[in-house]
Amino acid sequence: MSFRHGLRLLYSQLSVFSRELNRPWCRYISSSLALSSEKRATDFNSLVARTNTCGELRSAHVGQEVTLCGWIQYQRQGLFLVLRDFQGLTQIIIPQDEAHSHVKKVLYDAPVESVVRVTGTVTSRPPGQKNPRMPTGDIEVKVKTAEVLNSCKKLPFEIKDFIKKSEALRMQYRYLDLRSFQMQHNLRLRSQMVMKMREYLCNLHGFVDVETPTLFKRTPGGAKEFVVPSREPGKFYCLPQSPQQFKQLLMIGGLDRYFQVARCYRDEGSKPDRQPEFTQIIDVSDVFRSVEIGFVQNAVNKPQGTVKAICIPQGARHLQNKDFEALKESAKSQFNQEVLHLILKPDESLKSPLSKFLSEEQQSELIQALKVQADDVVLLAAGEHEKVCLVLGNMRLESANLLELRGLVLRDPTAFHFLWVVDFPLFLHKEENPAELESAHHPFTAPHPSDTSLLYSEPAKIRSQHYDLVLNGSEIGGGSIRIHNAEQQRFVLETVLKEDPELLSHLLEALKCGAPPHGGIALGLDRLICLVAGAPSIRDVIAFPKSFKGRDLMSNAPDYITPEELEPYHIQVAWPAAEAEANKN
Amino acid sequence: MSFRHGLRLLYSQLSVFSRELNRPWCRYISSSLALSSEKRATDFNSLVARTNTCGELRSAHVGQEVTLCGWIQYQRQGLFLVLRDFQGLTQIIIPQDEAHSHVKKVLYDAPVESVVRVTGTVTSRPPGQKNPRMPTGDIEVKVKTAEVLNSCKKLPFEIKDFIKKSEALRMQYRYLDLRSFQMQHNLRLRSQMVMKMREYLCNLHGFVDVETPTLFKRTPGGAKEFVVPSREPGKFYCLPQSPQQFKQLLMIGGLDRYFQVARCYRDEGSKPDRQPEFTQIIDVSDVFRSVEIGFVQNAVNKPQGTVKAICIPQGARHLQNKDFEALKESAKSQFNQEVLHLILKPDESLKSPLSKFLSEEQQSELIQALKVQADDVVLLAAGEHEKVCLVLGNMRLESANLLELRGLVLRDPTAFHFLWVVDFPLFLHKEENPAELESAHHPFTAPHPSDTSLLYSEPAKIRSQHYDLVLNGSEIGGGSIRIHNAEQQRFVLETVLKEDPELLSHLLEALKCGAPPHGGIALGLDRLICLVAGAPSIRDVIAFPKSFKGRDLMSNAPDYITPEELEPYHIQVAWPAAEAEANKN
Repeated sequence: MSFRHGLRLLYSQLSVFSRELNRPWCRYISSSLALSSEKRATDFNSLVARTNTCGELRSAHVGQEVTLCGWIQYQRQGLFLVLRDFQGLTQIIIPQDEAHSHVKKVLYDAPVESVVRVTGTVTSRPPGQKNPRMPTGDIEVKVKTAEVLNSCKKLPFEIKDFIKKSEALRMQYRYLDLRSFQMQHNLRLRSQMVMKMREYLCNLHGFVDVETPTLFKRTPGGAKEFVVPSREPGKFYCLPQSPQQFKQLLMIGGLDRYFQVARCYRDEGSKPDRQPEFTQIIDVSDVFRSVEIGFVQNAVNKPQGTVKAICIPQGARHLQNKDFEALKESAKSQFNQEVLHLILKPDESLKSPLSKFLSEEQQSELIQALKVQADDVVLLAAGEHEKVCLVLGNMRLESANLLELRGLVLRDPTAFHFLWVVDFPLFLHKEENPAELESAHHPFTAPHPSDTSLLYSEPAKIRSQHYDLVLNGSEIGGGSIRIHNAEQQRFVLETVLKEDPELLSHLLEALKCGAPPHGGIALGLDRLICLVAGAPSIRDVIAFPKSFKGRDLMSNAPDYITPEELEPYHIQVAWPAAEAEANKN
Repeated sequence: MSFRHGLRLLYSQLSVFSRELNRPWCRYISSSLALSSEKRATDFNSLVARTNTCGELRSAHVGQEVTLCGWIQYQRQGLFLVLRDFQGLTQIIIPQDEAHSHVKKVLYDAPVESVVRVTGTVTSRPPGQKNPRMPTGDIEVKVKTAEVLNSCKKLPFEIKDFIKKSEALRMQYRYLDLRSFQMQHNLRLRSQMVMKMREYLCNLHGFVDVETPTLFKRTPGGAKEFVVPSREPGKFYCLPQSPQQFKQLLMIGGLDRYFQVARCYRDEGSKPDRQPEFTQIIDVSDVFRSVEIGFVQNAVNKPQGTVKAICIPQGARHLQNKDFEALKESAKSQFNQEVLHLILKPDESLKSPLSKFLSEEQQSELIQALKVQADDVVLLAAGEHEKVCLVLGNMRLESANLLELRGLVLRDPTAFHFLWVVDFPLFLHKEENPAELESAHHPFTAPHPSDTSLLYSEPAKIRSQHYDLVLNGSEIGGGSIRIHNAEQQRFVLETVLKEDPELLSHLLEALKCGAPPHGGIALGLDRLICLVAGAPSIRDVIAFPKSFKGRDLMSNAPDYITPEELEPYHIQVAWPAAEAEANKN
């Protein structure tokens, strides 16, 4: 059979799942494979047994007979209950007459969070009992028949309290956590945002959605990649950190305008965030060049040394000494970095442990350089350039948090501020050996067109065509124009980076075969959606996140595998000495 | 920073890539993140340097100045060339006057498959030179300026000949193969089909696109799963064969109406296809119960024994003796199964090596049972029920192939016939130990509602709520209503299947927590799109397929990894004895 030419390692399936009782909807799907692109409103009640969702009924529905399915949110003394589904809550009135005693018993006995189906009539709530804070608060449903579809055991907590429970418990019972309003909202928002992106790219701009393999060859320097043993002894696949090489190969293959919502696998935490606000820190090294403070002198006399400061306007009105101590303590414990604070008093004098070391002239120079005004606070750090920037960027965020705790509104949570970061260096000096260069991002980034001539003479000075996109201070994506010339790519790999170009021979070969100039961008969806949803953590926009240590607390993955089960992959566990010893005894 | 709570193992990114020269399009993307859902026509020329694609220009464009980018398909004596991109071909006229000698030289020297950018004026082709078979055949572009963006080395073959080259060569140079019209068409069709499915599910029916993890726990009996060593000694993740458990957990989590285009990882070939046409084979065991032929007698006297036949209407008019011999030989070599043929002659007598063993009464009984008419051919097989069905299903397809080679049209390649296969058994007798039962599909499938009572008494007789969807004879998907009752699930695992329910304790626990009745379907996208595209192999609808042995012939994955590189994963290669010996010497 032609479609089974060989071993299938990786394939895609469209997986569709629903709460469902009957089978007719399957026929519906097959008859709809000739898909209509006609624009209609979303119908949440197609294919299923309910007539309406629990968030849908309004005064206009009064008098209609409806069937609802959902979870029992709570039930009061056999009089009424509140039914919940993904769309909202509806109040259900339990009949009290003898003829409906069976219905009353069924609903009275059903534990909270049981799944029930009820049929009844939509009625107006009596005057004074309408709930304007509830979208369905004008109506209630008088039940005629009810069925418990699945009973729920006593839960270790109530769903509505769940948000207060420990992270570990939430992860272990993730399926209960998913029932919360917030998780339902976030996951649906994510689905809709990604759909809008697809419509924009695919329908409006003719991009092609191409799936690239996730079982690939190890990339040079890919120390953080997961390895996957194959059935050939000693041979391994890798889970790629990104579709890096494939997207270049697609461009070379003429698949103009590619996009993909891709999984990326990295066996590590992500890099610390670059804080683009650093550009707003003002450098005051010159003021301090002749100041007689030991650590300041140490700093400004080193090649990468600097003294920098940030200003918190009107900080003295809202922050107290204990706040400054807390900030300094945080800088010390997180970064092992001293931070000093200065306050400009209304009489224009500087209040600071530092002021006695500064001449009056230096003080006024500092005030001018930082444009300090009365009641402003200055936080100052001296040391190695990058570290000082990192610490002060952090101090800036922590100060903002403190001020917002005092009731100030500094950051509008509903505003979205985008920022492009450009002109990154193409290469960096290696930390362990500054005489050698490494790629600032990856070896495929093209040099800045104005700097290309420097590639062969002073590669350390060259800017790259890399760009980062920042939203409200967080990096949400990055990309680059790539090298499309095989000789230039070989030069970067071999001569600048001293890497073995043979490891990338397939890419070098491809670049020789008519590779068009190309580039792109990748957005980190988790973080972007986290920012848009206003969620505190990316775990709140991922259905099944891993824990801090990469564990799945629900199923307890990763887990042990027997030596017999490892045999087909030709690997065995190399136990660390201590554990091997323990196993022996 | 709140969004970096922990180790990130798996995350999604939206990856966008394009042939591109300038950077302004990046700004375009960020300014468009507030996405408009306004319906517009697809614009293939946004964000890039070209004004038109190579498939776009018509008589209406005559007189316009245009910029095109593409690959040189061929070039003739410095007079004209044909430029190709993903949308088509455009003829480019090279200027012959002295003032444009530079342009002429640039284009004359550029090898085939080089990437060029040309700017010029659209003109009508001279009378008699229009090409009606080419969508852009009415026009040509008179070039004013030209630039080679990337030169191409001499290729080992021409792109247009490529389809004839060996599979291995096509895989090694996959990026060249992708430039073919057929691959461009197939991958774009795939993208559009998946987009339509998404619009249908997401926009019209309110389904939620949820990404589930691909690093998970090993499932019981998951012998064909890939394992991924973690950094905890002895602990492994698995790449799941499907999002099986996660979609159930999503239903329990209230994520009503889930869908996902999911990657599935199986370390094996797929199961042989069930041939749903088997239902059309007619059983003739009764006719042969008293027939004195050894292998027929053997067959009908066994518990699973049967005699079955298929009829090829008018077969005798188109098929000859050597065809019947070929069919029989195929059944013998592929399945070790005897097949006999009978022909009903116009005089109503049966022509067959078999006819001497059949009484006149038996002959007419057979003719009646099979509704055989003059010139029809009957193929008959006796043996074990399942094997006979498999062989005759195969004979049916092979006969159809033979008849179509003779010019008959039996299967309309443009027609799509869908078929549901239902009422599968829930359990099968294990081949190696028929006293024990195994799941026909997987242990989560619910029993047929009419058969549920048999679960506790005669589980082998129970039908399942599994269903398969078949398109033009190929299985393209399957699904089931799942068990939502924890006690029923435990009974199936523990009592019927004799498996350790503790391995699935997280699922059993979840079923107790208010699991709604639920079910779904998964479509195999590769095969479905293969059928719709009319492609001979699923490799023609996958950008980067693996070879027969699971190899990536372009990058040579999987590949060896040094023992040092394996150290962080606490594994070492267990070399088979022979290779370990060879390595030693």
